[in-house]
Amino acid sequence: MNSPADPLATLPLRDDLRGMSPYGAPQLQVEVALNTNENTHPVPADVVDAIGERVRSVAAQLNRYPDRDFTELRRALANYLGHGLTEQNIWAANGSNEILQQILQAFGGPGRSVLSFVPTYSMYPLLALGTGTEFIAGRREPDFSLGAESAARQVAEHAPAVVFLCSPNNPTGTALDLDVVDAVYEAGEAHSTVVVVDEAYAEFSRSGTPSALTLLEGRPRLVVSRTMSKAFALAGARLGYFAAAAPVADAMRLVRLPYHLSSVTQATALAALEHHESLLATVEEIKTQRDRIVAELAALGLTPATSDSNFVFFACGQDAPTLWQGLLDEGVLVRDVGIPGHLRVTAGTEAETTAFLTAVRACLHRE
Amino acid sequence: MNSPADPLATLPLRDDLRGMSPYGAPQLQVEVALNTNENTHPVPADVVDAIGERVRSVAAQLNRYPDRDFTELRRALANYLGHGLTEQNIWAANGSNEILQQILQAFGGPGRSVLSFVPTYSMYPLLALGTGTEFIAGRREPDFSLGAESAARQVAEHAPAVVFLCSPNNPTGTALDLDVVDAVYEAGEAHSTVVVVDEAYAEFSRSGTPSALTLLEGRPRLVVSRTMSKAFALAGARLGYFAAAAPVADAMRLVRLPYHLSSVTQATALAALEHHESLLATVEEIKTQRDRIVAELAALGLTPATSDSNFVFFACGQDAPTLWQGLLDEGVLVRDVGIPGHLRVTAGTEAETTAFLTAVRACLHRE
Repeated sequence: MNSPADPLATLPLRDDLRGMSPYGAPQLQVEVALNTNENTHPVPADVVDAIGERVRSVAAQLNRYPDRDFTELRRALANYLGHGLTEQNIWAANGSNEILQQILQAFGGPGRSVLSFVPTYSMYPLLALGTGTEFIAGRREPDFSLGAESAARQVAEHAPAVVFLCSPNNPTGTALDLDVVDAVYEAGEAHSTVVVVDEAYAEFSRSGTPSALTLLEGRPRLVVSRTMSKAFALAGARLGYFAAAAPVADAMRLVRLPYHLSSVTQATALAALEHHESLLATVEEIKTQRDRIVAELAALGLTPATSDSNFVFFACGQDAPTLWQGLLDEGVLVRDVGIPGHLRVTAGTEAETTAFLTAVRACLHRE
Repeated sequence: MNSPADPLATLPLRDDLRGMSPYGAPQLQVEVALNTNENTHPVPADVVDAIGERVRSVAAQLNRYPDRDFTELRRALANYLGHGLTEQNIWAANGSNEILQQILQAFGGPGRSVLSFVPTYSMYPLLALGTGTEFIAGRREPDFSLGAESAARQVAEHAPAVVFLCSPNNPTGTALDLDVVDAVYEAGEAHSTVVVVDEAYAEFSRSGTPSALTLLEGRPRLVVSRTMSKAFALAGARLGYFAAAAPVADAMRLVRLPYHLSSVTQATALAALEHHESLLATVEEIKTQRDRIVAELAALGLTPATSDSNFVFFACGQDAPTLWQGLLDEGVLVRDVGIPGHLRVTAGTEAETTAFLTAVRACLHRE
């Protein structure tokens, strides 16, 4: 995009976009793609049938605009989450990126800021840029952990309009203790800060790890976002959602594009939710492979982080781009998230995990 | 939303959203809904089958993120449009609202303005607000027409970053002469203005009305947007798109959310495009009913505007809200677009058109 012959240079782009490259992991054709934290298990046959049938059943009425309040879907999502939530507590959009964008459109924007704690999900600063919200990069400890006291102090210092807490954190993989969420919310009280806990990977948490959903009661500016892209194996269907006090969901109507959620998307998500037990059956298998990666990388002398997600972040004891390329040469694509000395790998099927670990051993041997 | 007990008042909403109500036509349950310019013909059975099959065929791979460049869909849209366009000239999003929003995100935004000529599509000022772009309400003639000289003068006066030309115009229904588009583009040359011709209703134009697609060659900042919501009878599928010089399409990658177009949406649109002849078969029937509405309203002494769309805008010779309510009492929902003395009605099936005209006669009789 930055070549001298850049055709975009001839266009009246906004100044803050000039010279930028589009977001996105390299899409390479490889045998074993473990770079985007997808669920590598295909959608089970019973769910494929249900999606096909449900979409077919709405197709004749696609001449009409969708239910713009998607009430049936919100009810189904509330039932799935439990915790006494109803459809009034739920909002959904085309992926959790759109969820977070809408939250910034409503509560962020010019003259306001969003605080997050880096390294974290790399879309946060881009969503801030796209909505004119100032992005404040808060600090973590050297081991990438985040304590309640430090987080609260940084909230008090910056008085942000919005805080994004990614838990389990991407790319490091570890869930936050709920006392951190509680402390951040408390510290933001004085500034009416909206606190978003991004739980995209929550279904993969180690057992006994509570969700921030348990904190919603009595916290009118706490938002817990989820996605169907990971545990539900529906990245291609683009369905993100959140749970919060009802007024927060209502506020999204002011910023969402009318009819933002298609009838086809609603039908697909409803079919998947009806079969959530079948879809979520892969979660335990993925957690087993995730724990296997952690154990075996440690045995190889590398340093994996504690993971509550479907991926493992690890210190690779060498130049990360070199190991990334070495693994690619073995047919395994992982993610170099730009943190020196570290890589991130998605926990896939047992065979994919074996291929990854075999490739790691080959690379370490070669040194 | 403005009641004293407004629960949103307790939230830290952006100041420019306070007290606003969500966009959207009233969703009332009536026999004959002719208020949102939907195609009232259901999707034909062969297209229903094709959509169901195509979605089913991608469902097993929904665990993977979609093709974020949706190359196959862009190629199919280019083939449909003709005019020598290729996939590199095409961009698509979740409805043409998202198309226009992305254009403002790339070329508008804080410190920049978008000019349109009111009355026109009521989402334009809301899209400007949502992207921090100043909205400039240009003027039309008293009969709502827009001439080349006046349009060019207003572009020169305001030097906007973007111009939205709605053709056929919503809510008035008439297509612009291409010399207006040409004059606006010429006037914007000095300011590198991006000129968007919103042709959402183009397939309904009277025969011999040329599309702005014929002007794309040699105009690197001209954009022609379309939608599958109207002629294609796919409002529920949310697929808007544009044709432009390839760098304009490339620029959208900088502002779109990653993977914004789901695999299910891509599959649905591809199935519909494969069967476009079947879907577009209703267009001639709708045009017949549209022309019938124009002729019969004129015969009743009302003043319908020339229509190149699937709706008719008419001066109703009385208080518009009174006639709107009278028609609703007869079971027919039309749109009061807020222009004194005028209403807008969608051309539906022959039976719906008859019901509307019968209701109009009953209301006029009652006076």
